[in-house]
Amino acid sequence: MPELTVVRVREAFDALATGDREKILEYWHEDVRFEIPGNHAQSGWHEGIDAFLGFLGVVAKVSGGSYRAENITITVNPDDGYSVDVNTNWARRAGAPEDGDSPYDVLDVTAMHLLRWQDGRIAEGRGVILGDGVSTSALWWAPIDATGFRRGTQ
Amino acid sequence: MPELTVVRVREAFDALATGDREKILEYWHEDVRFEIPGNHAQSGWHEGIDAFLGFLGVVAKVSGGSYRAENITITVNPDDGYSVDVNTNWARRAGAPEDGDSPYDVLDVTAMHLLRWQDGRIAEGRGVILGDGVSTSALWWAPIDATGFRRGTQ
Amino acid sequence: MPELTVVRVREAFDALATGDREKILEYWHEDVRFEIPGNHAQSGWHEGIDAFLGFLGVVAKVSGGSYRAENITITVNPDDGYSVDVNTNWARRAGAPEDGDSPYDVLDVTAMHLLRWQDGRIAEGRGVILGDGVSTSALWWAPIDATGFRRGTQ
Amino acid sequence: MPELTVVRVREAFDALATGDREKILEYWHEDVRFEIPGNHAQSGWHEGIDAFLGFLGVVAKVSGGSYRAENITITVNPDDGYSVDVNTNWARRAGAPEDGDSPYDVLDVTAMHLLRWQDGRIAEGRGVILGDGVSTSALWWAPIDATGFRRGTQ
Repeated sequence: MPELTVVRVREAFDALATGDREKILEYWHEDVRFEIPGNHAQSGWHEGIDAFLGFLGVVAKVSGGSYRAENITITVNPDDGYSVDVNTNWARRAGAPEDGDSPYDVLDVTAMHLLRWQDGRIAEGRGVILGDGVSTSALWWAPIDATGFRRGTQ
Repeated sequence: MPELTVVRVREAFDALATGDREKILEYWHEDVRFEIPGNHAQSGWHEGIDAFLGFLGVVAKVSGGSYRAENITITVNPDDGYSVDVNTNWARRAGAPEDGDSPYDVLDVTAMHLLRWQDGRIAEGRGVILGDGVSTSALWWAPIDATGFRRGTQ
Repeated sequence: MPELTVVRVREAFDALATGDREKILEYWHEDVRFEIPGNHAQSGWHEGIDAFLGFLGVVAKVSGGSYRAENITITVNPDDGYSVDVNTNWARRAGAPEDGDSPYDVLDVTAMHLLRWQDGRIAEGRGVILGDGVSTSALWWAPIDATGFRRGTQ
Repeated sequence: MPELTVVRVREAFDALATGDREKILEYWHEDVRFEIPGNHAQSGWHEGIDAFLGFLGVVAKVSGGSYRAENITITVNPDDGYSVDVNTNWARRAGAPEDGDSPYDVLDVTAMHLLRWQDGRIAEGRGVILGDGVSTSALWWAPIDATGFRRGTQ
């Protein structure tokens, strides 16, 4: 069984980015649960790798492919089987004006994932946003823009 | 053109409750806009009588038919063409435990509608919730229960 | 006893603006209760005319005197003893950059007051904000700016 | 310089609990910055060990001494100088009914601290709450109870 290290956490996210299901399942359990924080349309526990990948697809679509994440650090506890990765996240809502900086249009937060590892793979993940990012990201995820116009289904 | 009175406002909501489209259009413009407050899945401007009736259908479904409203008062300004009706609202989320009182499960607020009248019919409505009811109703509308479990599409 | 009319509601707010306590008490009960919506530092029921005037002083201070309100309409129900006045509100937080438009710095909402009249004077008032203004005004009232810096006590 | 280990993180919090300033400064920089998440009265960056200890005093007071934390795990990255500790938090607001379970009265969340270490001591900390805990803890921190009654200054 591979050891839980900073490198292995990084590899797990790299695998996710490939979209290669077989590769992904080397690092993520098929019945992984992943929690998105807050109470917006995508919040709560997504059950199973397909639901989780589906969520990532929604992010890509809602952000018009603009979503970017940059890693700050990764911490681990191999004995307990936990890791935490810290990242900056940036995204513009699809259809939002290119020059606007309203929180309804632009997501600009620092966030973390708490991952629980079992038998060398991720069994559970919980996303979380720092500072007042839960408030501002609620506006980004909202079905409305700053004027109350409903910008279409998420 | 019928005068804007307390009685006429009451009749407009009575017409809505019948579900009879022709009757409804005696009081509501076909292209009426109606705003639901907050930033949950149903928030923002619903454009046109069909979108508005669709929203009422969602409320009925999400509340499992438990939604109740009771009028407190109706205020009018016939010269400006505005009315405000004040109501208590109560509803249990469909599927929520019968004895729970978590705000994720039970909606219990006082709310108002600001209506703008044009040519004897309602052209625009804006819902609004008193006190901290926007916070608690956000939990009721959330796709999750108090444990983060996703309770299904709204 | 003076009748409850649109003019009398307007006079009640004009009296408030004078700051003349005797004049104010012609329109507002000494033990008036006034509710500020949301859950920020000034939210909830302010009990008595002095607490209410104290709140208005806080608004003036926190906005560095920039707070502006413009009336849209006033609706009344003399039989029930209720009025509702609808207003646009605008204010910049004291100390906020002059050219910023973040909701942490600029309040720009439409709001209403539901007033209950008793014996010709206001016995109870409840403020309420339209659209998603409760969310954005929570940021304006927050003890922090958009970077999390604590901008001093309110 | 002491190494950054799970044990050292635990010792840092044990030192904090003693209230012994000299002991605390063995683990925490005197000019440590600590961020409380959300936008309630205590949110944002508390600058310096005294401001941080002052915040802990406010928690003790507002919870009437009922605040309890239990550690789940601690993760570290000694190379980058970061640790994350995960804890359950529970507290009843001082003055709240003993049998109530409203989120205005009872805080019941899982939370994390992201700590940045420098020269063997904590230079920066950022608190964060999992799931929808930012929403429910906003109600716990609110100056109001579930009825809008202002429960006194924090």
